[in-house]
Amino acid sequence: MSDQYDAIVVGAGSGGLTVAVGLSGFGKKVALIERHHVGGDCTNVGCIPSKSLLHHSSQQAGRSGSEILATVRERRDSLRRHETDEFGAMENIDLIFGSARLVENGIELSGDDGQRTILADHVVLSTGSRPRRLPIEGLPEDRYLTNEELFELDDVPARLVIVGAGPIGMEMAVAFRRLGSEVTVLDAAPQILPFLLPEAAAVVDRAVTGLGVDLRPGLVAHRFEGGAVEIGPVGGEIVDRIENVDRVLMAVGRLPNSEGLGLENLGIETDRGRIVIDDKGRTTKDGVWAVGDVSTEGATTHAANAWGRRVIKHIIAPFAPAGDRPEHPSVTFTAPEAATIGQQPVDVPHDVRRIVHQFSTADRAFTDEVNDGVIIVDVRRLTGRVMGATIVGPRAGELISIFSLAMKADLPFHKWYGTVWPYPSYADALGAVVDDYMRDAMKNIPGDAVSWVKGRIAGVRS
Amino acid sequence: MSDQYDAIVVGAGSGGLTVAVGLSGFGKKVALIERHHVGGDCTNVGCIPSKSLLHHSSQQAGRSGSEILATVRERRDSLRRHETDEFGAMENIDLIFGSARLVENGIELSGDDGQRTILADHVVLSTGSRPRRLPIEGLPEDRYLTNEELFELDDVPARLVIVGAGPIGMEMAVAFRRLGSEVTVLDAAPQILPFLLPEAAAVVDRAVTGLGVDLRPGLVAHRFEGGAVEIGPVGGEIVDRIENVDRVLMAVGRLPNSEGLGLENLGIETDRGRIVIDDKGRTTKDGVWAVGDVSTEGATTHAANAWGRRVIKHIIAPFAPAGDRPEHPSVTFTAPEAATIGQQPVDVPHDVRRIVHQFSTADRAFTDEVNDGVIIVDVRRLTGRVMGATIVGPRAGELISIFSLAMKADLPFHKWYGTVWPYPSYADALGAVVDDYMRDAMKNIPGDAVSWVKGRIAGVRS
Repeated sequence: MSDQYDAIVVGAGSGGLTVAVGLSGFGKKVALIERHHVGGDCTNVGCIPSKSLLHHSSQQAGRSGSEILATVRERRDSLRRHETDEFGAMENIDLIFGSARLVENGIELSGDDGQRTILADHVVLSTGSRPRRLPIEGLPEDRYLTNEELFELDDVPARLVIVGAGPIGMEMAVAFRRLGSEVTVLDAAPQILPFLLPEAAAVVDRAVTGLGVDLRPGLVAHRFEGGAVEIGPVGGEIVDRIENVDRVLMAVGRLPNSEGLGLENLGIETDRGRIVIDDKGRTTKDGVWAVGDVSTEGATTHAANAWGRRVIKHIIAPFAPAGDRPEHPSVTFTAPEAATIGQQPVDVPHDVRRIVHQFSTADRAFTDEVNDGVIIVDVRRLTGRVMGATIVGPRAGELISIFSLAMKADLPFHKWYGTVWPYPSYADALGAVVDDYMRDAMKNIPGDAVSWVKGRIAGVRS
Repeated sequence: MSDQYDAIVVGAGSGGLTVAVGLSGFGKKVALIERHHVGGDCTNVGCIPSKSLLHHSSQQAGRSGSEILATVRERRDSLRRHETDEFGAMENIDLIFGSARLVENGIELSGDDGQRTILADHVVLSTGSRPRRLPIEGLPEDRYLTNEELFELDDVPARLVIVGAGPIGMEMAVAFRRLGSEVTVLDAAPQILPFLLPEAAAVVDRAVTGLGVDLRPGLVAHRFEGGAVEIGPVGGEIVDRIENVDRVLMAVGRLPNSEGLGLENLGIETDRGRIVIDDKGRTTKDGVWAVGDVSTEGATTHAANAWGRRVIKHIIAPFAPAGDRPEHPSVTFTAPEAATIGQQPVDVPHDVRRIVHQFSTADRAFTDEVNDGVIIVDVRRLTGRVMGATIVGPRAGELISIFSLAMKADLPFHKWYGTVWPYPSYADALGAVVDDYMRDAMKNIPGDAVSWVKGRIAGVRS
């Protein structure tokens, strides 16, 4: 095995695998370093087991919670083995287990068989992130979970406290509630899913509360005593006790795995631990790149993939322009799903129109008895350009993709108008949103009769 | 009540309501003539009760089939009452129950209180369609159903034979099988859903067969004898008997309700009973328009709505150009859904590339244990223009909407490329389809390094 490569990729998660496979496809010789499991968080302790658990918890078919947890784990493990074999066998990729530390033009590798230096023209850092572990006074170690331990549970906790009402916390609240846990969710913030507009978060709040989850926004865990988690506002008095708590799931954000990489040796800049990258994915040190959660850009699997592709492009074609940065959507897979893309400040700028459309007005919502859900779209009044969108409702993860494409292609609402949406689909509701915009926009264009007619027709029931 | 109106709309189904409401919004005085129920087929015996039944049959929650049938009927009736009240009370619209026959500049109305003539500048025909009723020798009337009688059933038939494997037949096969019926589906054609590409239809075939439905393509009902439906090929021998048949649902296409309208009096042209219309929705007689199932254009609710809007536009702005005709998608709401848009001949033209992508390769399919499903997209090799798409898989009705928009806006695959699809969504699979196209397209453009790199990157796992 040679110790000189074209590229070293540190971390075999989503971003690292994308880069390694991509570069190998160009005939580059790649060392892919992984200190734990191929597939990273996504395959092992993130998207895959969490969505799998959400799926199986919604279709229990008489299985016990323990059986479902075991199924999720087995499927995860089979995928991990498959990926390990697949990437381990790839031409041009040497998959090496161990830890890496940056040196000039390469890394120092610490593995089972000691230390050695590997050199390369390019080093790509994709070491990911780990859960932030806030301490809870008095809580025994064996009752403390993060997403890293959660999917190893053999049994469903009778009473589960989740600290953090972000995507992980809310998705797992839904899954474990369905499996029979009594679930309480705490968060310092006054609103669950705080990155959502309040009326969008409220839909998820109502749905999850309706499932029997006890949501306690504005309250945090002060300590664990006598089997109970004592809760109160941040820095305030204890206001309540959650008795008989079996497990506490900590889901309060992520920390980048940037320590121990030797960034400081090479003068690589970080921002609150995250490796600063430019539009091409370059760090502040020539020849060193970063993608995914460890970088300043994106903290999702699709972001890691997208930035991975960007890094491949610029390693292969250094002088190519970086190009536009398409908007990245974000989906929380609660029931219903909550999806967003772009920017939607709480206060709407005066040149932007915010259209708020209730899902329940769609005919498909009538047939499927969907009584709650909202579409919120921000559109520039004059140009029809979409600035951002939030969808909370059935299939929101697919519906937001329509905006992913339209925003990438810079398709203003005037060009959406006239689209024939299938009846009775959920997408049909987007037609009503576009009509709403056109109705308003057209009446502001004086003297154009056809536009006026268009605008009025947009008012017609469809 | 005046007998002179700006417009008479004959038929208060989807198309007619769109036109009536639209014209009334422009201050036009409209007579809306309906001989049966407001809402037409869609509300009363079509989309609404069928999708409602599909929904409730998938979420039975311990209810009996009879209870579910009653629920579907109650909800349908409440919607019908709501629509009747809503449209009956609209300013500028007179909702009149009766039958219409065309005369010069108006109609002759036959209602409960006799006959009278109503005159108007415009008459819009939107009388819809009815099920084709093929006779089955020996079958008692009370065992013979079409979609018009189906939703009036008080009990779930123990054994149901469905004649016709089109959208209605296949959807109802799924719904009644879930409710406990033994279901056999016959069709003269050798393939269910014959408008689908064979490998797309095969996915629905496998899924519906897996549900326990007995599919018999290539066979038709010869006669009913001794409680059994005797079946065989068209014009051939009897090859099998379906015993103990309670009901037969006839779902072999639709006939336009164009008789009795007096079309011949005014020289209005028809094509196999359907009223011929031009790009603006005009019949061959000045001042007479047609929309929806009774016309030559479209036989879906969204088609009726889209053509209804077109007619409004041209009544209000006669000299406006007709404009482009956007593609109409089509969705069959089986499980999984089957959706198509555009043209996809079985034999692919040489300048078109057909991309066939298995859904099961998507990570979301892995987590949700979706093992079957396909995306088939036809793209012009040189321009990346989408000619047609077929999707059979979860949420296909929403995913096809992405094509509805992109084809309406004429967005070639080059402009799709780079879109960040949410992970792990089903829409993510479309990214793989676009990658496939780019990989192929880019290698055919010699001498452009950046495109070459793009094409190669498109091959990277995402």
